[in-house]
Amino acid sequence: MTQLRQAPSPIAALINKFSKLPTIGPKTAARLVFHLLNRPRHEAQSLAEAIIAVKDNVRFCSICYSLAESDPCEFCSDDRRDAATICVVAEAKDVYAIERTAAFKGRYHVLGGLISPMDGIGPAQLHVKELVERIGRENPREIILATNPNAEGEATALYLSRLLLPLGVTVTRLAYGLPIGGDLDYADEVTIAKALEGRRAL
Amino acid sequence: MTQLRQAPSPIAALINKFSKLPTIGPKTAARLVFHLLNRPRHEAQSLAEAIIAVKDNVRFCSICYSLAESDPCEFCSDDRRDAATICVVAEAKDVYAIERTAAFKGRYHVLGGLISPMDGIGPAQLHVKELVERIGRENPREIILATNPNAEGEATALYLSRLLLPLGVTVTRLAYGLPIGGDLDYADEVTIAKALEGRRAL
Repeated sequence: MTQLRQAPSPIAALINKFSKLPTIGPKTAARLVFHLLNRPRHEAQSLAEAIIAVKDNVRFCSICYSLAESDPCEFCSDDRRDAATICVVAEAKDVYAIERTAAFKGRYHVLGGLISPMDGIGPAQLHVKELVERIGRENPREIILATNPNAEGEATALYLSRLLLPLGVTVTRLAYGLPIGGDLDYADEVTIAKALEGRRAL
Repeated sequence: MTQLRQAPSPIAALINKFSKLPTIGPKTAARLVFHLLNRPRHEAQSLAEAIIAVKDNVRFCSICYSLAESDPCEFCSDDRRDAATICVVAEAKDVYAIERTAAFKGRYHVLGGLISPMDGIGPAQLHVKELVERIGRENPREIILATNPNAEGEATALYLSRLLLPLGVTVTRLAYGLPIGGDLDYADEVTIAKALEGRRAL
C-alpha cells in the first residue's frame, strides 16, 4: 500500500506552534503557514524578528508592573502624572485601554491577573503585596479599581477594597458604564471614559 | 496636558505584523502579543525559528509544484505511486486534504491558484503550461481535476478540460459529493473520498 504523505515537517511544526496560540485552531494555523509560504522571505524574517524583539526589549516595570522598554516605565518616571491616584488593572494591556480615553492622568498598578480560585489564582499570585507596599511608600490619595466588570474582576475589587480601606486610602471602582460580562480591553473609549467619570467610593 | 502613552514600540510592531496575516484583526493580534509576553522566552524563540525554517527548508517541487523538503518531492520520486494518474489541485495545501482520504495513489499537479479574471489571474499565472508539457512528457492515462467546487474552481476545470481533451488524455472531475460553494481544504475526509470515487468524465 502506498504510504500516506503528510505536509513536510517544517510546515507541520509551524502549524503545531501557531495552533498553541489563543484563538488559533489547526485550520487557521495551516492557513497562516500557507500564507507565509506564499510571501517573500523577508516578511517571514521580519515577523520572526518582531517576535524575538517583543520578548527581549519589553520588560515589566518594577514599580507598577506595566510593560515598558525602560525601568521604571514611562508612567512611573513621568512627573506630570499625578502620583496621588493609582489605577489598578488586571493586565498590562488594560493600561492602554485606559490611556486611549485620555481621561486619566494618574499612575497605574498592574495586578498580573484576577483572583480566580478555579484556576488556582489567589492574591499571592498577583502583585497585591507590592500594591500594599507601594501605598505605604507613596501614600496616594485614591486607588481606582479598574478590574474587568465580570465575576473575577468584581471578586478582586471586593477583596482589594477590604484590604486597602483600613490603610486610610480612598478606594473607588469604575462606574457601571461598562457592559457587564465584558472585557475591559474590548470596551470603546467613550464607555471607559464614562466609567472613569462615574467612579464611586466603596 | 499629560502625554497619551501607547504600548512600547516592540509590542506595537508585532501587533502590526500579526494583523497583516489572514483571519487576524488588530484585537486578535494584540491578544497574541500579550500571550507571547506571558510565555517563556524559549517558546517565542522556537516560534520565530519555526517561521524561518518553513521559509528556508520548504521549496516547490520542480515537477508537480507541491511543497517539499527535497526536489523532486516525495510524491514524484515515489515509484509506488501511479504515474499514469495526475490529480490537479489549486493549492499545495489541497494535496494534503486529498492525502488524508488515503483514497488516491497517483501523482499531483499544483496549479498555484485558480483562474480569476477579477484578480487578474489567468492561465499564464498558473502552472498550466507546465501541466501540458508534463502530459506530453509523461503520457498519463487520466487527469483528475480536483479544483474547488466554486466559481473559480469550475471555470478553471472547464478551461483545463477544453485544453487537455485534445491531447488524448482522459479528463475527470471530482464528483459533486463536495458541498457547493465550499473550500476543498475544509471538506471532511469521507466527503473527499466519495467525490474521488464518483468522479465523472468530462
